Amino acid sequence: MDSCVTAAIAKTDGYTPVFLHINYAQQTESRELVAFNKIANHYQVDQKIVVNISHLADIGVSCLTDKSLEVPNADLESDEIPISYVPFRNANILAAATSWAEVLGAKTIYVGAVEEDSSGYPDCRRSFFDAFEKTIDTGTKPGTQIKIITPLINLSKKEIVKKGIVLNAPLHLTWSCYKNEDVPCGECDSCALRARGFEQAGVQDPILN
Amino acid sequence: MDSCVTAAIAKTDGYTPVFLHINYAQQTESRELVAFNKIANHYQVDQKIVVNISHLADIGVSCLTDKSLEVPNADLESDEIPISYVPFRNANILAAATSWAEVLGAKTIYVGAVEEDSSGYPDCRRSFFDAFEKTIDTGTKPGTQIKIITPLINLSKKEIVKKGIVLNAPLHLTWSCYKNEDVPCGECDSCALRARGFEQAGVQDPILN
Repeated sequence: MDSCVTAAIAKTDGYTPVFLHINYAQQTESRELVAFNKIANHYQVDQKIVVNISHLADIGVSCLTDKSLEVPNADLESDEIPISYVPFRNANILAAATSWAEVLGAKTIYVGAVEEDSSGYPDCRRSFFDAFEKTIDTGTKPGTQIKIITPLINLSKKEIVKKGIVLNAPLHLTWSCYKNEDVPCGECDSCALRARGFEQAGVQDPILN
Repeated sequence: MDSCVTAAIAKTDGYTPVFLHINYAQQTESRELVAFNKIANHYQVDQKIVVNISHLADIGVSCLTDKSLEVPNADLESDEIPISYVPFRNANILAAATSWAEVLGAKTIYVGAVEEDSSGYPDCRRSFFDAFEKTIDTGTKPGTQIKIITPLINLSKKEIVKKGIVLNAPLHLTWSCYKNEDVPCGECDSCALRARGFEQAGVQDPILN
């Protein structure tokens, strides 16, 4: 959902987006890929790439990639980083995105990361994206200028839902559940955050219809 | 060769290294993997990981990954970044290494990057590694402290050869050629830099015996 609303914002900002999907061997990868392709079709995206960084599953420890670990029920009040955390995942994603951007001559990478109202992952904070931008400046060819835009970083899920509706983002094509690929479990962190966002926005979640 | 000498330095520094090999669909990947495993055996390394980031080949443009592009003969005097440059490759490598280090609780990543006497790749400069270190600080769990050590960064190939010999690094097990997997071509940038290093050190390259 966050990526979808981010794409809607990039379109509104006047960009012609290209789409990057990450396979890090997350349990719901196939379902996320379906959503990715549907949203790409919706926006008539020319160029798509699927990046496989499933070594993150070999490295282990996250319940998102290790099938022996159960995805826990949500605990949105906890201050702890949950077991769904995939170590340094977003740096792996951004490194691939930057390689592609440098080749394409793209100037901007949009990422749907959310710092507020999220699960507290360290690689979802704006300070991380700022540091990564400096890494891009130093590690790419002279003259390369790539900014990382995180339009949702300070939004609540409620605000993300509302923004998606205002921009006509195809929320009905999105997928958030960490656990299931058919019917959302309704119990994991990601389902719980999504449900709370729709509820607070006073809107029915279209994927639950 | 640079990675091998770097491993020798890490051992000398008192570390018990684990080894990470990168498959970015480089043309000589199998040969490099053979060298990786031999050097790991030499040092009796407990833990090894092979990370596949072959999406860098899909992204294209480097002669190291695109078989339709010929690996050019060396031009060590050129100021241009050569066509062997793989965009932002080292960030992709370091992102994977950091994920692994965070899981292992490792405090240090050793990288055999060379800024001096190299092909001028932007992601081989110490300023890039400094920026990446800050990215690690902001993007990993609180309390994680991972330093990036680049012991060869300011050395010439001659000095690297000499250091390898002093430390008894198994240089006979290493591979540098960008082009061939049986006999080094002797013509690519990597062969030329290696040959010049051994010549200036006044030593016979053991892989040419």
